[in-house]
Amino acid sequence: MKHFFLTAILWFGIFSANAQDLKSPDGNFLMHFSLEADGTPVYKLIYKGKDVIKTSKLGFTLKNDNKSLVNDFRIEDTKASSFDENWKPVWGEVASIRNHYNELAVTLNQKQTDRKMIIRFRLFDDGLGFRYEFPQQNNLIYFTIKEERTQFAMAGDHTAYWIPGDYDTQEYNYTTSKLSEIRGLMEKAYTKGNASQTSFSPTGVQTSLMMKSQDGLYINLHEAALINYSCMHLNLDDKNFVFESWLTPDSHGDKGKMQAPCKTPWRTVIVSDDARNILASKLTYNLNEPSKIQETSWIKPTKYVGVWWEMISGKSTWSYTDEFPSVQLGVTDFSKAKPNGKHGATNTNVKKYIDFAAKNGFDAVLVEGWNEGWEDWIGHEKDYVFDFVTPYPDFDLKGLNDYAHAKHVKLIMHHETSGAVRNYERHMDAAYKLMKQYGYDAVKSGYVGNILPLGETHYSQWTNNHYQYAVEKAADYQIMVNAHEAVRPTGIARTYPNLIGNESARGTEYQAFGNDRNNANHVTILPFTRLIGGPMDYTPGIFEMDVTNGSHVNATIANQLALYVTMYSPLQMAADFPENYERFADAFQFIKDVAVDWDDSRYLEAEPGQYITVARKAKGTDNWFLGNVNGETRRVSNIDLGFLEKGKKYTATIYADAKDANYKTNTQAYTIRKVVVTSNSKLSQYSAPGGGYAISFYPVAETAKKKR
Amino acid sequence: MKHFFLTAILWFGIFSANAQDLKSPDGNFLMHFSLEADGTPVYKLIYKGKDVIKTSKLGFTLKNDNKSLVNDFRIEDTKASSFDENWKPVWGEVASIRNHYNELAVTLNQKQTDRKMIIRFRLFDDGLGFRYEFPQQNNLIYFTIKEERTQFAMAGDHTAYWIPGDYDTQEYNYTTSKLSEIRGLMEKAYTKGNASQTSFSPTGVQTSLMMKSQDGLYINLHEAALINYSCMHLNLDDKNFVFESWLTPDSHGDKGKMQAPCKTPWRTVIVSDDARNILASKLTYNLNEPSKIQETSWIKPTKYVGVWWEMISGKSTWSYTDEFPSVQLGVTDFSKAKPNGKHGATNTNVKKYIDFAAKNGFDAVLVEGWNEGWEDWIGHEKDYVFDFVTPYPDFDLKGLNDYAHAKHVKLIMHHETSGAVRNYERHMDAAYKLMKQYGYDAVKSGYVGNILPLGETHYSQWTNNHYQYAVEKAADYQIMVNAHEAVRPTGIARTYPNLIGNESARGTEYQAFGNDRNNANHVTILPFTRLIGGPMDYTPGIFEMDVTNGSHVNATIANQLALYVTMYSPLQMAADFPENYERFADAFQFIKDVAVDWDDSRYLEAEPGQYITVARKAKGTDNWFLGNVNGETRRVSNIDLGFLEKGKKYTATIYADAKDANYKTNTQAYTIRKVVVTSNSKLSQYSAPGGGYAISFYPVAETAKKKR
Repeated sequence: MKHFFLTAILWFGIFSANAQDLKSPDGNFLMHFSLEADGTPVYKLIYKGKDVIKTSKLGFTLKNDNKSLVNDFRIEDTKASSFDENWKPVWGEVASIRNHYNELAVTLNQKQTDRKMIIRFRLFDDGLGFRYEFPQQNNLIYFTIKEERTQFAMAGDHTAYWIPGDYDTQEYNYTTSKLSEIRGLMEKAYTKGNASQTSFSPTGVQTSLMMKSQDGLYINLHEAALINYSCMHLNLDDKNFVFESWLTPDSHGDKGKMQAPCKTPWRTVIVSDDARNILASKLTYNLNEPSKIQETSWIKPTKYVGVWWEMISGKSTWSYTDEFPSVQLGVTDFSKAKPNGKHGATNTNVKKYIDFAAKNGFDAVLVEGWNEGWEDWIGHEKDYVFDFVTPYPDFDLKGLNDYAHAKHVKLIMHHETSGAVRNYERHMDAAYKLMKQYGYDAVKSGYVGNILPLGETHYSQWTNNHYQYAVEKAADYQIMVNAHEAVRPTGIARTYPNLIGNESARGTEYQAFGNDRNNANHVTILPFTRLIGGPMDYTPGIFEMDVTNGSHVNATIANQLALYVTMYSPLQMAADFPENYERFADAFQFIKDVAVDWDDSRYLEAEPGQYITVARKAKGTDNWFLGNVNGETRRVSNIDLGFLEKGKKYTATIYADAKDANYKTNTQAYTIRKVVVTSNSKLSQYSAPGGGYAISFYPVAETAKKKR
Repeated sequence: MKHFFLTAILWFGIFSANAQDLKSPDGNFLMHFSLEADGTPVYKLIYKGKDVIKTSKLGFTLKNDNKSLVNDFRIEDTKASSFDENWKPVWGEVASIRNHYNELAVTLNQKQTDRKMIIRFRLFDDGLGFRYEFPQQNNLIYFTIKEERTQFAMAGDHTAYWIPGDYDTQEYNYTTSKLSEIRGLMEKAYTKGNASQTSFSPTGVQTSLMMKSQDGLYINLHEAALINYSCMHLNLDDKNFVFESWLTPDSHGDKGKMQAPCKTPWRTVIVSDDARNILASKLTYNLNEPSKIQETSWIKPTKYVGVWWEMISGKSTWSYTDEFPSVQLGVTDFSKAKPNGKHGATNTNVKKYIDFAAKNGFDAVLVEGWNEGWEDWIGHEKDYVFDFVTPYPDFDLKGLNDYAHAKHVKLIMHHETSGAVRNYERHMDAAYKLMKQYGYDAVKSGYVGNILPLGETHYSQWTNNHYQYAVEKAADYQIMVNAHEAVRPTGIARTYPNLIGNESARGTEYQAFGNDRNNANHVTILPFTRLIGGPMDYTPGIFEMDVTNGSHVNATIANQLALYVTMYSPLQMAADFPENYERFADAFQFIKDVAVDWDDSRYLEAEPGQYITVARKAKGTDNWFLGNVNGETRRVSNIDLGFLEKGKKYTATIYADAKDANYKTNTQAYTIRKVVVTSNSKLSQYSAPGGGYAISFYPVAETAKKKR
């Protein structure tokens, strides 16, 4: 009775002038906005009657402004609206995306200062997005954010899948722990060794942050449309389980330079009682603007191989010579330098990859280490580190492109900036022009090392502005961008679909880094975290787990195959050496077959840290591909093939872990079997520790036509 | 006897392995280099037997390097050489410059670390230059300078003409004081109000620093060829009168990112017992590399007028509209905005200036405020502040250029960056292309406000690198650069003669700044300090000293005329309004007549802070122009016209202060008289406080031909 009474009071508040309610289209979510007695804006979020976000404050502290934007507000206006549309992504997991939400825009007026701030909430069936907007006004024009004070008050000591907050790198293994355990585990989680790292708090974590409550809610916190703003971290008050936004500062500790009219990125809360819905959510894209690129025919999902893993694994080098203690572009004469004999990007080696790509149906070959400057590119905060246009003497830019094009293969350009973003911008036009001259469609860019000038970091507003500049300028040249070490994606690829990939997390490369390898369950977490904002160039497909430098890849071959389906990306690499694929040609068939663009996707099983099973329908075909990745514990999937077209027969080729396979000692034990299935079939399939399985489904008639 | 004995010991040292002597070609200078007992390199400089620099240390402290580069050196090698050549500047005070020095290059080896550092000394007849060089080597590759530790130990408590050390501005009035008085006067000298200011030490001063010793030596400390290095200040140990280099830091406090092979700028000590020789010195240019621009016909000394003083003095505005609290490029629609009615860069007004320029023989018209963004350009650390290509609706880019060109007048482009250097670099190609499209030959650039990103300052290595980039890129487009608020020039215009001007000190604009105006003797100091590194766009020629906003120009009209001769620059503005020149058409004749490029220059009288008298021979003619500027005290020049060609008669037109003229209350009282003179003539000429005089000399035959 007491409980009922309290609830009644709360609900009464909703109808007062200082409070507003918003429901999701399906009615499962309720967002309640109100002002506290002192005029502090607060919100809370309820899903199916359960608290997701308890009453949480909204606002900003401002530099040189004692009043800030934290309280003393009154509601000047509210506007409710609804929106429902379907839009077609240029590439994606599905052919069409529904963008359906109810919106509440609350215009607040700070009484003492007569300053306006709009908080715009959009409540979808899969969660909440909200942002701050500052309309043009006379009393709030230019302002500097000291800190954004957006709270996300959790309803309990949830389990979180987290990486340490850091201004310079996202390349951590995930730690799974209770919120209350983060502080104690931070030191262990903060593994060192990245070329640029800057932590800030013992309870600071990154977004997208995945959590699971004791009562079975899956909650994801992230941001959408991070443009001209600093990247948000979350700092935890671990006594009260309240996260608060922690923006990335500039050299002066300031966190955002704002000029009204302006707006922040969206803060997102994706919620479900079924983990699969988190993976299927398109909320992040929906909160971004539609494509600003009108003609998109040049944006093409791409499956590629590359001269890359051999450098990562220690077999060859990016650099051309070992002759000099350091090199200087335009000064060092590489044509007279003694080659070190281990250079990867040679004409001979690149042709080998081109031949392999052509033979096996890959679209492209990435070549790293093709350009002068790799001798001392890392760790020196070197400004003029690359010019992005000058090849080493053993790399024939024109000849190799001609050779590739004759075989209907493209080369993928590589621009490592070494963090010297000004240097990159200075050479960007020439670099993009060179690409167009020789027929490159895509560039992999990199930001290894501290951002120059020092004082800026990888995720500060100034640097985020650079990544955006690079993507927009590339669009002008009709170039696709795959940016590594750049800020984590926030759905901007909807607006600029030429941003076909990002790294922004630990990729496969760490598997070659000895003691600091990816956990075996890493790939069961990434889709819940890193992939919420956009695709990742994870570079899967390693078949030989014991690599040249002595490191060991924590995966089975079947697991590696499954990644082409579980790690959605329009850009997928087959990262291993051609000779390793030739050794396991039957398993390699799956990589050759698997699509990189889809009409439909079905999340069949999912639990962060444990397993993910996805089926996807290849774009414009009746073929399906299915992947399962598994965590540390052996497991059997029991799945229903009801996603297949009713009444149609499919040949399913199942690439699975052998019974004795495991990611540590028996990585190459797999089985391949073919069965004919229909939409009525059920599948029970074993996955080894660190393993998984991959399945291709071809309609029986199609299978007959397909020549293998 | 005791003294003799000590001297003998010292001189003995010269011949030991740890010491080296170097003499100037004329034998007046002796530079002595040696190692102290602990291997610290030291040098001293003697001029005509007098100590100029007492034993002073050389070296660097390095970041993350306990050993640094301060001591433990041995001399590994020394190389002595001589050099003598004449070179022709593209523009200048003289047609040919002699570069004549004896050189000593000392290769030092740090014993414990086996690291090499070369100190290269060049001793000229007018002073010393030396720099540090780091050859390619295995034990010193990348290093970060914590501080350069170059000392300049003064031999006494000299009189100095100084401005406060500052990382962001050079726009101070000079203070004349004893070295020992600097600390006490610093607070007063550090006048506030500049858009960007950063002081660092109570005894920190800027170069070029002019001094005068009690025994009559004039000593100037500066640097030459400041490229890819941070700008040097001088910090004074005022107990011992020892200056030490104090470099401009980056956001981390680091003072230089170095990669061997590399070198520092030259540290310069210009010395004479005659102040005129300091002004005539070409040491700074001689220490720079020859021109890297091969074809220089497009680089043209220029006399110009402009839409500028009317904004400075408050008559009109750079901005177009007052309608918005702030503007955003690409968002604000200026075509629909309400004009404020005071915009200076209108078609009508610019045509008025073009007409005036054409009528009076000026080469060009500068127009500021022509492009969108001026409404809120200052003080907001706004990144996207200008795009450098979009004119206001009332400025017809093509039409005005066509109009000007039809009258054989050029428009000068204006690029204010507001300190947002990345934004400028992003738009630089488009901006320079636009200039070429419409026929602009020159750009005035500006860097008002804090440098973005914060953490960098106006004189840090990263920002200096930008100024250099702008000049080199402009050269690619055959564009002349006149950079305001950029780092002080250090003779780089020899190497890039398209750098035809800089501000880098208080220009005439401060005369319109009310309580913070230039001292009346400012122009008697600038040639000894600011002009040592290159020309200044001082924008002289104000005739109406009581300006629109109520400020008062501290000068007489005769003083303003003299500046066209005393302030050498290949770029000279007639800054006042056309109507003010029309009011004083007889005085204006001198500005119309005076040349901006010279075959010869003779410094006739000079004392810093008191007076400067110079005669210059106009390029390719027999005409001479003479200027005298005077300090606070009335004075009579007694000069010899021996510089005129022997046996030739000249009509001298003398523009002089009236007897009752003074810079405060009677600024427009001048006399003009004509006399015929020869090289045997003597002239006795009065100058008022803050006044001066100007003289044109035309051979009598020429005068007859000349139609006025």
